[in-house]
Parts: sequence; structure tokens; C-alpha cells
Amino acid sequence: MALTLQDWLSIDWPLIQAPMAGVQGSALAIAVGQAGGLGSLPCAMLTPDAMKQELSRIREALGGKPYNVNFFCHAQPAADAQAERGWREALAPYYAEFDVDPAQIGSGPGRLPFSHEAADALEDFKPAVVSFHFGLPTPDLLARVKAWGAKVLSSATTVEEACWLVAHGADAVIAQGLEAGGHRGHFLTDDLSVQMGTMALLPQIVAAVDVPVIAAGGIADAEGVAAAMGMGAAGVQIGTAYMLCPESTTSAIHRAALQSESARHTALTNLFTGRPARGIVNRLMRELGPISAVAPAFPLATGAIAPLRAAAEQRGLGDCSPSWAGQNVTGCRAVPAAELTRELVRYL
Amino acid sequence: MALTLQDWLSIDWPLIQAPMAGVQGSALAIAVGQAGGLGSLPCAMLTPDAMKQELSRIREALGGKPYNVNFFCHAQPAADAQAERGWREALAPYYAEFDVDPAQIGSGPGRLPFSHEAADALEDFKPAVVSFHFGLPTPDLLARVKAWGAKVLSSATTVEEACWLVAHGADAVIAQGLEAGGHRGHFLTDDLSVQMGTMALLPQIVAAVDVPVIAAGGIADAEGVAAAMGMGAAGVQIGTAYMLCPESTTSAIHRAALQSESARHTALTNLFTGRPARGIVNRLMRELGPISAVAPAFPLATGAIAPLRAAAEQRGLGDCSPSWAGQNVTGCRAVPAAELTRELVRYL
Repeated sequence: MALTLQDWLSIDWPLIQAPMAGVQGSALAIAVGQAGGLGSLPCAMLTPDAMKQELSRIREALGGKPYNVNFFCHAQPAADAQAERGWREALAPYYAEFDVDPAQIGSGPGRLPFSHEAADALEDFKPAVVSFHFGLPTPDLLARVKAWGAKVLSSATTVEEACWLVAHGADAVIAQGLEAGGHRGHFLTDDLSVQMGTMALLPQIVAAVDVPVIAAGGIADAEGVAAAMGMGAAGVQIGTAYMLCPESTTSAIHRAALQSESARHTALTNLFTGRPARGIVNRLMRELGPISAVAPAFPLATGAIAPLRAAAEQRGLGDCSPSWAGQNVTGCRAVPAAELTRELVRYL
Repeated sequence: MALTLQDWLSIDWPLIQAPMAGVQGSALAIAVGQAGGLGSLPCAMLTPDAMKQELSRIREALGGKPYNVNFFCHAQPAADAQAERGWREALAPYYAEFDVDPAQIGSGPGRLPFSHEAADALEDFKPAVVSFHFGLPTPDLLARVKAWGAKVLSSATTVEEACWLVAHGADAVIAQGLEAGGHRGHFLTDDLSVQMGTMALLPQIVAAVDVPVIAAGGIADAEGVAAAMGMGAAGVQIGTAYMLCPESTTSAIHRAALQSESARHTALTNLFTGRPARGIVNRLMRELGPISAVAPAFPLATGAIAPLRAAAEQRGLGDCSPSWAGQNVTGCRAVPAAELTRELVRYL
């Protein structure tokens, strides 16, 4: 492309702060945006009202500067009583251990796909960038987003997915290497063996599509940023490195895990939501998985886990908590996000 | 380190041609060595006599230039009649389909660990570099290798393995990212979830050890080489890209697979040898694995597969062949290895 990502998105640095539902809100997006990167607000777990509050804060703080809002676009599965029963049976020993009454289990924190209701809430704000995970929303929804001029990004975990995204309207593609923390963005197949490391995935996607490609997965320092750009990335998306920043809402238990030796061992697990996501290996992952055939479809696995997580955390234990992290936590630093951003781009 | 890899190994370019048993011999090692890289001879499947023949050719062609010889250093398992029976039962439908008489099955091509017998054969040649896979040999064997002045390299798939190798005498470490083709080099744990992509693994090993670190896995072009060097690698090790070179002995079926769409999908499989190795997904991997609990311990799985492989290949089919490849075959080109070597290092 003729334009740089900076020109195209009106930012100073080709760095997107990865949207990370559960560990950050507007504060991190604002800090990165003010530092000249592109901050992101993860919206999958926000009600429309909460989203509007967060967007108001971002708009006020950033003035005319761009920001990214991120949504999941999975098909919401129907409730499946049998799967839920099997799941609760698998969790029964933990309910007993942590004194959780299974009768009190609610539906847990939801993760809703992008919807017209969400688009209604966004329309007042017209964010400059909207990114999706798990593919793209339906054409009518995508058209609404594009109608207000937003640039649309989505994650590809294979070359095929990158081509699919471009063919279906994505304006740029995030090449999400296997090293990345949090949910894998795959949507064309559930076969995890097709997933590639960033070093292999990035150049192949760059060669396959004519839109900007943003590298994600395993990038934790300025050398990694420069290396990705050298391999043809138009920009980078970095999440894990920001998780200790004061602007993040990462829990104390999650922060402790990120700073411990155990953070060296992450794995893909479907226990916490029903879809594979990379997190620090903990007790539940060791004992039940990390990939379990019994976990209900995304995002329904979350409900039965939520009270366990809460009960264990009340005892100071992360045994049942999703401690999302990528494969390289060495870039995590408890410094203001603006400072971290400046360090990450210092070779550009 | 003060020295560059080039100075340390007396080569022109910090590029090691990855040893690839079964698809190359002395010719490829010579071509890369003559081009100024470090050629490698894979010795795991060579008898001492065959090894001496190959080493004589290399010595004659390269004169005083250095080269690398590579060995596996697994513990050879005892034959296990029960495991062998289970394995042959799993393969029975294929024996029937390909008209293989199970009574005629031999022990197959062996893969022997480094031994005093091998060291005896090497001693006349005193190769400048000896690299190992699956850890390091016993201290007495390692001492023999070091006694003639060889530099010792070995593969690490985790930070822990890198530290272990250095503590046990490795002079340099190959950071083998998950993208790499062929056998995974892990030796401290069989848990594949600890394996990392190159982008995450390389900088963490660079930070953890004080010896030169060579990046391997997913590097397929000059941009990838430069990126790895930018992330702190002292050099790179590249295998897959050389597999179509005329100096390689890659079979016609393997060459066809590398050039087909199917090469986009590789997976780790233990079907062909008993240890996880990355290859292009084929029929056997789809139908039995790719990872099977029934495959006997490395390298014993090979025996029962060998006649199937041969019979299928006689029909022009790669259904039962190990088509080793990394996750990025886009660098494979049917050009002389010297030309490919020069292209790979052109940004250095």
C-alpha cells in the first residue's frame, strides 16, 4: 500500500493496543491513544449502556483522535441442558471443595456477538476503527459500521482466513500468530493444528492479501516490533505487555500470575468460555484440560465456571480463573501505558 | 558475545542449513558450505561406514571449511512386543489395502543415538561443529566430541531446555520454534503445550543464556532472516526452504507435496517415528492421528510404517510417507542451494 498505517488511521505509531475483555476498559485505550498508538475498547462483555459510558470517556479524553472498538461475532449457541449438565458434573468436585452451591449458579458473564443494538450504541460515536474477532458480522451489520466511515479490522489465524476476510469486506487483517494471548480468532475451522506461529503466518498473509496486515502474537518488545515491521507488517497489535500497566484492570491474582514463573507456561484452553484461548496454565487447566470435550459451546462454558472462579479468588487462589497471556510475558511492565508504548516503538 | 557467529565458526554468513535426515546428504551440506553458510550432515540414519563416505566427500569438497554433523541423542527404547502388536493392528487396514504382508515387516530404518561407535567414525574427520537433537549425549561422549575441538550445538524448545543445555555443555543453542519442520527437539518434557512460536521463544532464550542463540522455525526468506537477527539471534537455521534444491534428495512425492496447496497445512505427528515431528498433513495423519497413543516409542514406530510407505509410494501415493515441512513452505525454491543461501542472507 502507498499509505502507512499511521497515515491511514491518523495515528503517530503503527501500534494497536490489543482489546482485552476483562482486563481493561477505557483507561488503557485512552492512555495508548494519547501516546500516539491506537487504543482499543473490548466491547464483548459490555452492555450498550456501559459501552456508551466508556465511549464517552474515550471521546472526551482523546478529542478527535481515533480509537478502536472490538467485538466478537460468533453465532450465539442455543442453551443445551445436556451439555450444561455434563459440564457441571465435571466441575462438581470443585463446587464441593470451594463451597459453591450448584443451585445458585447463574448464567455467568455473557459475551454477546456484535448486534444492531450494539451498532445503535456506537452510532453516536462513530469510532474510526472497529475490529472483530471470530470472523465478521452479517453483511447488514458490516454495512452499518462502514456507513459511518469506520475502518474494519479482523483477525486471521491462517492464510485462508485472511483471504476470506478481505473478500468479505475487512479493510485490514490482523495476523494472529499462535503465540497470542486470549481467544484464538479462528473461524473457518476448529482444527487447531492449522494455527501457525507469527514468524510463519505473518509473511504468508502479507504475500496473500493487498490490505494492511497487522502482526499479533509473541511481540513483547521494541525488537519484536521492528522485526514484525521488517517482515512486512503494516503495524503490530500488542496485548500481554500492557497487562501490568496501572491503566489496566487486571486482577491482583492475574497480575501475580503474570509475574510468576508459572507465566512461562501458557496453553490454549476452552475451559473458561468454550473456545480455545491462551492463558497461564493453572490448576483447572491441568486437572480438566486444557482442552475439554465437556465444556459447552462458546460462550456458555463461562456460567458454571464463574462462581468457582469467584470463590477461589476469595481465598486468594487463581485455580479457576482465566489468566490470559501470550507466550512471551517478558514485556509486561508495571509502567504507565504511554511509557510502554513509547518504548515499544522506539526503533521505528 | 563479542564474536559474531561468523567469526566463531569461521563462516561467511550466520546461516546453518538444518540437518534433515532422509532428504539430504553430503551434496546439500557441501553446496551451502561452499556458499559461505554452515552445511550440515544428518547422521542419525547413517551407518558408520556410510557416514565416513559422506564425510570424506564433504572434507574433499570443502577443504578446510567447517561443517556440522548432526545426531539424535535419545535413549534407545527396548523392543515392546505388545506395543508393536497394537501398532500393527492399527495399521492392519492399510496393510490390506496396499497388499503388504505383515509377516514380511522388518525392523525398518533405524535411528540410532550418538554412540562411541559414531564418535570413532567422526574422530578421523574432527568436524568443527556437532549438533544434537533431543538434548545432549552422555558426558563421556560429549567430552570426546569436545576433545577434538568441536563446537557443540543443541536444540531448545523452551527457555528451561536452553538453560539446561548451556549448563550441560552446549556451546550454542538452537531456539527451535514450533513452526519448524521435522522432529521437535524437546527433551525435558513431552508436554507439547509448552512449545512456543519462534517470535516468543527466540527473545526469551536470548535473554536467558550467555551463548550464541540460533533461530529456527518459520524462517523462509531474507526478511525472516533479518527479523530473527534483529531479535537477538546470532544466526539462523533453515531447513524447509532447501528441500526443493537439486542438491537435496527429497523424493518426488515429497517435492510434489511441498509444492501443493496441501503444504499449507502441517501438523505435529508421531505416526512415522514415535516422536512428534512436523510434516504436511496426509491421509495417515488424518485417519490415525496426527498424534496417536498407539504409536510405539521413538524410533520404533518406523518399522511397521516402512513397508506401507514403500507400497503406497510405488503407487505414486504419499498417503503413508512422512512429508516433513515447516509452517512456511513459501521459501522452497528449486534453485541451487548456493543461490538460495545468497538470497537468504542478502539483507545482512
